[in-house]
Amino acid sequence: MHARQGAPGSRWRNTRILLLLLSGIVPAMSLPLGRASETETRTLAADISRDPSDLPGPLPRRAPKLVRIDLQAREIEGRLTDGATFRYWTFDGKVPGPFLRIRVGDTVEVHLLNEPGSRMVHSVDLHAAWGYSGGATLTQAAPGAEKVFTFRALNPGLYLYHCGTPVISQHIANGMYGLILVEPAAGLPKADREFYFMQGEIYTSGPFGASGPLASDLSKILQAQPDYFVFNGSVGSLLRHPLRARVGQKVRIYFGNAGPNFSSNLHALGAIFERIYEDGSIATPPMENSCSIFVPAGGAGFVEFVPKVPGTYPLVDHFFARQEKGLGGELLVTGPLDPTIIHEGNAR
Amino acid sequence: MHARQGAPGSRWRNTRILLLLLSGIVPAMSLPLGRASETETRTLAADISRDPSDLPGPLPRRAPKLVRIDLQAREIEGRLTDGATFRYWTFDGKVPGPFLRIRVGDTVEVHLLNEPGSRMVHSVDLHAAWGYSGGATLTQAAPGAEKVFTFRALNPGLYLYHCGTPVISQHIANGMYGLILVEPAAGLPKADREFYFMQGEIYTSGPFGASGPLASDLSKILQAQPDYFVFNGSVGSLLRHPLRARVGQKVRIYFGNAGPNFSSNLHALGAIFERIYEDGSIATPPMENSCSIFVPAGGAGFVEFVPKVPGTYPLVDHFFARQEKGLGGELLVTGPLDPTIIHEGNAR
Amino acid sequence: MHARQGAPGSRWRNTRILLLLLSGIVPAMSLPLGRASETETRTLAADISRDPSDLPGPLPRRAPKLVRIDLQAREIEGRLTDGATFRYWTFDGKVPGPFLRIRVGDTVEVHLLNEPGSRMVHSVDLHAAWGYSGGATLTQAAPGAEKVFTFRALNPGLYLYHCGTPVISQHIANGMYGLILVEPAAGLPKADREFYFMQGEIYTSGPFGASGPLASDLSKILQAQPDYFVFNGSVGSLLRHPLRARVGQKVRIYFGNAGPNFSSNLHALGAIFERIYEDGSIATPPMENSCSIFVPAGGAGFVEFVPKVPGTYPLVDHFFARQEKGLGGELLVTGPLDPTIIHEGNAR
Repeated sequence: MHARQGAPGSRWRNTRILLLLLSGIVPAMSLPLGRASETETRTLAADISRDPSDLPGPLPRRAPKLVRIDLQAREIEGRLTDGATFRYWTFDGKVPGPFLRIRVGDTVEVHLLNEPGSRMVHSVDLHAAWGYSGGATLTQAAPGAEKVFTFRALNPGLYLYHCGTPVISQHIANGMYGLILVEPAAGLPKADREFYFMQGEIYTSGPFGASGPLASDLSKILQAQPDYFVFNGSVGSLLRHPLRARVGQKVRIYFGNAGPNFSSNLHALGAIFERIYEDGSIATPPMENSCSIFVPAGGAGFVEFVPKVPGTYPLVDHFFARQEKGLGGELLVTGPLDPTIIHEGNAR
Repeated sequence: MHARQGAPGSRWRNTRILLLLLSGIVPAMSLPLGRASETETRTLAADISRDPSDLPGPLPRRAPKLVRIDLQAREIEGRLTDGATFRYWTFDGKVPGPFLRIRVGDTVEVHLLNEPGSRMVHSVDLHAAWGYSGGATLTQAAPGAEKVFTFRALNPGLYLYHCGTPVISQHIANGMYGLILVEPAAGLPKADREFYFMQGEIYTSGPFGASGPLASDLSKILQAQPDYFVFNGSVGSLLRHPLRARVGQKVRIYFGNAGPNFSSNLHALGAIFERIYEDGSIATPPMENSCSIFVPAGGAGFVEFVPKVPGTYPLVDHFFARQEKGLGGELLVTGPLDPTIIHEGNAR
Repeated sequence: MHARQGAPGSRWRNTRILLLLLSGIVPAMSLPLGRASETETRTLAADISRDPSDLPGPLPRRAPKLVRIDLQAREIEGRLTDGATFRYWTFDGKVPGPFLRIRVGDTVEVHLLNEPGSRMVHSVDLHAAWGYSGGATLTQAAPGAEKVFTFRALNPGLYLYHCGTPVISQHIANGMYGLILVEPAAGLPKADREFYFMQGEIYTSGPFGASGPLASDLSKILQAQPDYFVFNGSVGSLLRHPLRARVGQKVRIYFGNAGPNFSSNLHALGAIFERIYEDGSIATPPMENSCSIFVPAGGAGFVEFVPKVPGTYPLVDHFFARQEKGLGGELLVTGPLDPTIIHEGNAR
């Protein structure tokens, strides 16, 4: 396992894993840790998982303007588990691709460069764009080629983008997806902490838990039989890169479900989502106070809440069996404990 | 493949299929085209798929009145794919059954005639009716018999109707379903183009892709293991009968999911659904700006949007593996291209 | 089959089963009735299914106060079908656990006693509580131990609670779940009849329909391959304990889906849900007039409607194949029939 940012060494890490195992959020069998081949794999495989705090901040209040977006299709061998690697297809080398943030009315010039080292044609379908399958039919780029198109963002919302080259579901499953936020003219309400992560399925040549380099299995993709469910592309990514906030901060999580097939019902143990923007809709008044947000494959949404208690909030899809297939993450909250909100023992 | 309405011959058709294959919306393996037995099958099998523009227009503003609805249960051998036929059970010989359109407060006299040639008992359960399982317990009709009941429509909304004879899920899977719209007193907002189509599952005696006449497989139905997912009852129906509109027209799509089991997440590539009426609810303010509408089996909903760009908008369930099992369709939009909305190349 | 409360004898019961079979709601194969071993099983096995009318009434209008909740983790052999028993893990000996009803602002002292006869550690995660995984990390109780924690209810809503001891999904699947309602300060609108039931999955050592005492199968749980889908923990529970109301009464159903995996789409044949509070949210204006409520695993919601016609309203998940795996129930409505709403035959 890679060293964690800010994690105080392996003893703490092992303690945390033990606690997770005890809590049942990450059962022992779901973590293919400490295999014989681990050391070699570790040194070879890139961490393709995007840090959930890696996203641009809110846009300044401004008039619509011309915005340029550069995306690079990159095929890269990356760490799937501590014992296995996978040939990812990515935007910009990370899963998910970059969080794109524009304003309604902006004109957006999209450049898609398919790296010369690629073996496949790639493209991009932005659900925020009208026509041409969101740009997919304008951006089919052979290895080494760059394709460009320009669109105007007409509808505020949070949208998926993904590679639109056949077999599309394979390009999605292998990692080519991200979110694009089209802010309304007045922007979104202020948040203290924003996060960005996505759920996806991975279909591998070996069974769940196999070690070594794994290939993508097209027949499993076409039969909707995934081996792994992951946040941000790899097993344990949001444990290695947890979300971090302080008590009393307003947290916003942008969450997308790339699928390519299964719905997700995101839940944070110990938290209540106080405002839920379903289906990526911004204009619709948010739902208030629910424990989960339901996001079908191909969809996105965001939630807002103020953590009231310090500690660890495990992140799960409430389809619990998927925890056995790689899903899991954490929001770590620091700050003072107000015992009137929760405490061990009798009322005082 | 049958000749398409208005399609300029087989060369164009083949080009279109090629484009679809390239776009990945209809992968090669999903289209059992050009089999040896095709010619024979083609001549024998009826096209049971309803054209998505086959629905009555909005009701005039009027007081509640007495309305008579006639439904005919008809068992018919129809085209499932270009190489295979299926013994459909239908309302009025098409899948889905007719789009029923009434006004809240109307008294509705429902006549269900089960054709003399039927082998099975049939009936109808209208989700818009109160009591008697929506009329199912009042309309169990043996072959040749007619059953009648009368109900008053009390709740505006878009509702499923389906055969309510055991095993219900088999009657649904074989094609006995449709939608009934109960308009509110003030009607719905005006739309320029209205469409009507439904998703369903088909369970066949042979595996996916088998040719020849196929029977319904009850054990697969009971195990929820469909061989096909289809719009309007057959593979490619909404490619042979695409939706057609012009740039700038307000389009409304009434979409139902008959199931009998699986949820759908309808999406049109290159389009944003600008108003989404979920769960068939009319009184609830619609959701704004999302790329899909989620409809569980047994449910319905409708979406509204104004296409802003000419071209082809592929219709999919964003559970992508179902494209390999027969799902797919198209909205074809004609009219002028405004390059400020989208164009190939750099910003001008 | 156990004698039903208020059922007028076995002849009526058999007639009702016949009608259900005829209606297709409960196909013959879904009811493992009348097996050789039935008599013995019947005498040995407790009825663990909670009556759907077993819930506390609305709270009086009052200021926030201190409330004590006592929960007892109890492992108990109970009737799964008429031919089979199952080792249930429960709160207070019933599935679901008690309906907990508090007011926003209340301070809640939760006592979890794990019965001395238990073999497992148990705990409780209340989705209404902030931090400590909803109390799960504060209440891991060995057999015979009691754990206590205190929390303040800050967010009105309808929430799931469940055992939070690993493997969590096994503790849920075996029966450890219930709902907690946090009423807003002004309470909920008045209802004449309130009901409470939940959907769950059961994973057994034998296949569906096996008789005798059945154990929980962890590997099926981890693979999400349930043998049974049930309301209130056992096959036929809501037929033995149907919901009962009169024409014109305002009915409210609190419905939770424990999962631990699959979504539900609850529907009552012959009824329209006139107000639907999705995702357990109370502050969000309810959806109006839909035939079903969609509840993912880990979620809850409630619906309100006024039955307008006397008779039987079968309760189903509109994923129909689950009726073959044990789901089913009934709302029985008595009172006068207004023939202007529905009647057999032509309009009068």
